[in-house]
Amino acid sequence: MEKVVIESVAMNGGVGDYSYANNSSLQRSGFEAAKSLIHEAIMEKLDIKHLCNGNSIRITDLGCSVGPNTFIAVENIVEAIEQRHHSEGLKLPLPEFHVYFNDQLSNDFNTLFNSLPLERRYFAAGVPGSFHTRLFPEKSIDLVYSLGALQWLSKVPEDVVNIGRIHYSNAPSEVMEAYKGQFSKDMERFLDARAKEVVHGGLMVLSFPCLRDGQPYSRFLVGVFFSLLGSALMDMVKMGKVDQTKVDAFDVPFYAASPKEVEALVERNGHFTIERMETQDFPILQGKGAIQVYSKHNRACTEGLIRQYFGHDDEIIDELFDLFTNKLSESFSILEESCMNFVFVLLKRKQD
Amino acid sequence: MEKVVIESVAMNGGVGDYSYANNSSLQRSGFEAAKSLIHEAIMEKLDIKHLCNGNSIRITDLGCSVGPNTFIAVENIVEAIEQRHHSEGLKLPLPEFHVYFNDQLSNDFNTLFNSLPLERRYFAAGVPGSFHTRLFPEKSIDLVYSLGALQWLSKVPEDVVNIGRIHYSNAPSEVMEAYKGQFSKDMERFLDARAKEVVHGGLMVLSFPCLRDGQPYSRFLVGVFFSLLGSALMDMVKMGKVDQTKVDAFDVPFYAASPKEVEALVERNGHFTIERMETQDFPILQGKGAIQVYSKHNRACTEGLIRQYFGHDDEIIDELFDLFTNKLSESFSILEESCMNFVFVLLKRKQD
Repeated sequence: MEKVVIESVAMNGGVGDYSYANNSSLQRSGFEAAKSLIHEAIMEKLDIKHLCNGNSIRITDLGCSVGPNTFIAVENIVEAIEQRHHSEGLKLPLPEFHVYFNDQLSNDFNTLFNSLPLERRYFAAGVPGSFHTRLFPEKSIDLVYSLGALQWLSKVPEDVVNIGRIHYSNAPSEVMEAYKGQFSKDMERFLDARAKEVVHGGLMVLSFPCLRDGQPYSRFLVGVFFSLLGSALMDMVKMGKVDQTKVDAFDVPFYAASPKEVEALVERNGHFTIERMETQDFPILQGKGAIQVYSKHNRACTEGLIRQYFGHDDEIIDELFDLFTNKLSESFSILEESCMNFVFVLLKRKQD
Repeated sequence: MEKVVIESVAMNGGVGDYSYANNSSLQRSGFEAAKSLIHEAIMEKLDIKHLCNGNSIRITDLGCSVGPNTFIAVENIVEAIEQRHHSEGLKLPLPEFHVYFNDQLSNDFNTLFNSLPLERRYFAAGVPGSFHTRLFPEKSIDLVYSLGALQWLSKVPEDVVNIGRIHYSNAPSEVMEAYKGQFSKDMERFLDARAKEVVHGGLMVLSFPCLRDGQPYSRFLVGVFFSLLGSALMDMVKMGKVDQTKVDAFDVPFYAASPKEVEALVERNGHFTIERMETQDFPILQGKGAIQVYSKHNRACTEGLIRQYFGHDDEIIDELFDLFTNKLSESFSILEESCMNFVFVLLKRKQD
């Protein structure tokens, strides 16, 4: 059977019950954890004098989705830069901020734009397109920010045979290796594109879900989610509602790298120095209330992908996520014992 | 009765029967007429050497709507700049292009982004917001382009009493004066904002419907449209389907300046020199086929405004535009004898 190339799809748009806008509290936890690290990065590593010589300070959030997390993040970055400027007592005034909100073409930019804070201290622009490609002219970005986005691969690795599963978690090692290879290619493309776009000395703050070195995939929170979602899809196969060959050919383009892998990829690329790198525990939700949060969160993040591949039948989608919610409930003790980390990486563009 | 402030609303989104995307051929005529003038402006007035010293060439289309006209225009501008660069035989390579597509927050940016040409020689960004306000950081734009947008006022002038009409055409002179005053304020805000944003020596190419000096409003094509649309609304009042007080309080924020007015406003503002200014006849459609084109075109441009004010009742909207189409048909000889001009203005940002 021929394998369709499955590419990443944006998070759910709009502001409804299953929208990303209303189901992104987990990502916000990731941001809260990264917040002080970003503040320190700006206070310690930003070349503020150089920035003050320009006409504007250009920031981009890569993989911003539809808000509100991106607005909170940008507000924090702007505040930190203002504080840094103030603390240096520089004579040159701080230039105006230009913020580029990037996400894939399928992202709901109308919702994003309509959610922009009315009172903001920056000029805003939306940039549609994959961050695995070039998005900006050469040397036009001072600070790149990306939270919870780089784990999405540009596509599912080709030639993966993954019968009865939708992810590499619990899959044979060759499936995992194929994902690892795709992540490596994607990071290379990401770093090459940014190397062109970021000014020399410019910073890149990246944070995304990762596997702590040595942690087994069977206990990786998102891996557990995808195992359960795959199992729910297989139940629907048994009920005759979904075609088994469709499930076999479908995989989720999500990869959790280990910090060591990330470090090796940045070093191999050679355009950026690693100024700081650490992992942070993602706070695992406890108690039965977590099930609905996890369920809606997973739906907001994967529904677009599933619809694109399995079709837009609302009943099928609703039933799938009902089954998934039941499975979350049955496997609750596994979820409570799962873990996830976020890797935080601060990169600086080298002089060529 | 209290007057609601009526602000401009974006053209119809999507790609349906009444979408701007499928009903913008009239604007394209305006663009075709301006095309050679833009080409000449770039060949004669653009400071190409200065541009080649920067990292990118930054262009914005203000009031771009959803395409396709904006993409054709941008493609032409990029081509002309490349030709100019080639003809100068400069050693410095041409920097990459960064194009900012601007329109109001209510514009359908999702449709715009999904219509972006896949093969393009520029990096694209969308910028939501009124061009009567600041949109970009200081000195961050090299070339401003705006076709068929500046005739839209930021809002209907306040305190206008315009019983039984929706526009100043055929209205008492104080109504016209109020519109004129609003246009003057809007142009001042527009020019002040752009004066901050455009680099010294940067160009601004503006083209929009205007009244030829001395031409009577009663024969101005768009004025005739609004008279007929107002008359259709009044028919619906008589049929008890629309409230008369609503029609009395509703006006369309569209103003056709004369070239002399535009010249005076630019000179009063003082930040730009007029490098070239001329008017061009807009080709008036002839033959009965024109009625459907005019009808759909008017709907694509005013439906958003009407819905925002009169409510989203599809039946009412359909009936209104049916009545309007009949009136276009009845008044066909007046339409054929109407006229419209486009003013083309090439401005250059002065040194302060």
